[in-house]
Amino acid sequence: MHDPLPLPLALLIIFGSAKLLAELCERLGQPGIVGEILAGAMVGPSVLGWINPNETLKALSDLGVMFLLFGVGLEVKASELLKVGGKATLVATIGVIIPFFAGWGILAAWGAPQIESVFVGAAMVATSVGITASVLSARGLLHEMASQVILAAAVIDDVLGLIVLAVVSSVARGRVNLWEIALVALLATAFTVVMAIWGTTAVKRVLPIFGSRARADEAEFHIALVFLFAMALLAQYTGVAAIVGAFLAGLALSDSSDARMRTLTRGVSELLVPFFLAGIGLHLNFGVFRSRSTIALALVILAAAVVTKLVGCGLGAISLGWKNMLKIGLGMVPRGEVGMVVAQIGLGMAVISTEVYSVVVFMAVATTLLTPLLLKIAFRTPTLVPAEV
Amino acid sequence: MHDPLPLPLALLIIFGSAKLLAELCERLGQPGIVGEILAGAMVGPSVLGWINPNETLKALSDLGVMFLLFGVGLEVKASELLKVGGKATLVATIGVIIPFFAGWGILAAWGAPQIESVFVGAAMVATSVGITASVLSARGLLHEMASQVILAAAVIDDVLGLIVLAVVSSVARGRVNLWEIALVALLATAFTVVMAIWGTTAVKRVLPIFGSRARADEAEFHIALVFLFAMALLAQYTGVAAIVGAFLAGLALSDSSDARMRTLTRGVSELLVPFFLAGIGLHLNFGVFRSRSTIALALVILAAAVVTKLVGCGLGAISLGWKNMLKIGLGMVPRGEVGMVVAQIGLGMAVISTEVYSVVVFMAVATTLLTPLLLKIAFRTPTLVPAEV
Repeated sequence: MHDPLPLPLALLIIFGSAKLLAELCERLGQPGIVGEILAGAMVGPSVLGWINPNETLKALSDLGVMFLLFGVGLEVKASELLKVGGKATLVATIGVIIPFFAGWGILAAWGAPQIESVFVGAAMVATSVGITASVLSARGLLHEMASQVILAAAVIDDVLGLIVLAVVSSVARGRVNLWEIALVALLATAFTVVMAIWGTTAVKRVLPIFGSRARADEAEFHIALVFLFAMALLAQYTGVAAIVGAFLAGLALSDSSDARMRTLTRGVSELLVPFFLAGIGLHLNFGVFRSRSTIALALVILAAAVVTKLVGCGLGAISLGWKNMLKIGLGMVPRGEVGMVVAQIGLGMAVISTEVYSVVVFMAVATTLLTPLLLKIAFRTPTLVPAEV
Repeated sequence: MHDPLPLPLALLIIFGSAKLLAELCERLGQPGIVGEILAGAMVGPSVLGWINPNETLKALSDLGVMFLLFGVGLEVKASELLKVGGKATLVATIGVIIPFFAGWGILAAWGAPQIESVFVGAAMVATSVGITASVLSARGLLHEMASQVILAAAVIDDVLGLIVLAVVSSVARGRVNLWEIALVALLATAFTVVMAIWGTTAVKRVLPIFGSRARADEAEFHIALVFLFAMALLAQYTGVAAIVGAFLAGLALSDSSDARMRTLTRGVSELLVPFFLAGIGLHLNFGVFRSRSTIALALVILAAAVVTKLVGCGLGAISLGWKNMLKIGLGMVPRGEVGMVVAQIGLGMAVISTEVYSVVVFMAVATTLLTPLLLKIAFRTPTLVPAEV
């Protein structure tokens, strides 16, 4: 391990390069997010080697994506998401099944052991809502119906991905405990559903009591932050991602929050989101290009990762017309940090080889880089479908 | 070392307890800051042991105090600080000389080796501008003349403290390199003076060029952050504290910044400053209460730390009347993280015993806890001295 750089230097390199490349991408007519991810790849170990991933950068990145999703939650109404809940469930479910079996099948055909193939299937399941949310939010598209289906489906997708991972991990350990898996599924589903349905009402009743009685300046923002951390923690304990908790916290607060709370939240995400985006780029490594067979596998997995989500999620949204199918399918493509986490678990359990690990990470980073570019094209034509379903 | 807690749990414990105790203190008529520091002491190793200092918390704390000082800089005008520059230099200088010799003398009288005594003197020199800035900012007192003298003096104090530390360290190493010390002094002074005098003008000329041409949303805030990190880094390289650089960056931007930039900055500090305040409390340890002689030393050092700054800085401000003398003297009392850093350097060079180290840390935390309480009393009576000198 290298000694960490002085904090201001690390901040300057990551934040500065992210914003510089973002600006460059914008001028080339491309989404700024692509520039921020590329900046991470550039300053990271695989190119310049100025920045190495470490605990602190990980924490800034985690905080960044937490506040990103919290901010997106603040701008969306739970009632609107619940309206598209049926559609989103269909989108998420088909969008989980197809990539899972595709990943499994491809690895099996490549000659990988059964358990490794299943793990790659699991890594191809979960969508990184952070990237899509970031694109939609930056382009002011959060209130389009397709965007709301994407957000709701990404949350459901996370719960489904968790269940798949629980099953796959217990298969890998050689002892399948059905009760344990059922408990995981129940807890995660209950947390998500309860928060989505009753969170807003609960907050509306409870927040004014604390908020109006507190003496401190900005007390409402402090209470919101405590709520955010508590929900992120609860989400983690029930098994879903901390950022899903953050999103649900924002959602619950969206009716009660004012412009000031949004701007204060915005300040935090403007500072920290680049650490999340560049952090994904930091993980890019060229280990995948060691052998021809691995390159071929990586490209096939990447193509499958894009096509299976596009087709699976698109099929789920078939009733909304082909333009929305395209938007929703593409919006669910990025795997980002979620795919990497599954691959890391597999690596930790010694059921995934480092070669296959680098393939999965490549897929996760590449889908994340592609999505903003594809979404830009998909959302170019204004949709005429109204937000009511 | 313990394993670090899951991030949301650590955030919840520190932020939640800080804001809870802050609210409690406010209701008891005491400054909220005291509650936040006490919260750190409570959840830290010396009481509950829930939270241990680690890299990530240190980074959040460093970022927090950086944004705190940046925000204070944004609210103050460089031209106003320069007006009180003469007074502030006098305040800082006398306020450095008296505590230094007092610390040296007390340790020598206690029977400590010469070099250890000199180091304790050095640790008693530097004021933690973070705590005072936080109190003044929370109470809306940044525009009082006494506050501006305190801020300017604290910055000068940091430069003087650096020079004292350079001298003391080279004495401890046994080879006094006068050229090196002169270079340190020159660099630090040049950086501070140049930024304070020409920073505003330079920013006014350069910022609009980038700001108006950038395509990204919130581009001005991004440029301000890059400037902030660059100044913090430059400050660290020239030897002064990163937060002095952050303050000077805010100062340079204060004419060009609008309400939105202030609110975005505020969002970051509302989130992170509690980590700075609680972080100071985390370092409280009761090692100092091991023997009677150490307790006595700690109490004498604490008393001396308060009285010598009060008298030294007060004397420097004698022309402003006794009320301002009191405010300015008290405002310079907290040693906070600065005192601890000097003690750590001494410990690292093996010239300070762990016993004396714990005494210095006790003094640093205790002065920091006392200051908000004392400042509250001192600033209770509205001053009638106008801001023009």
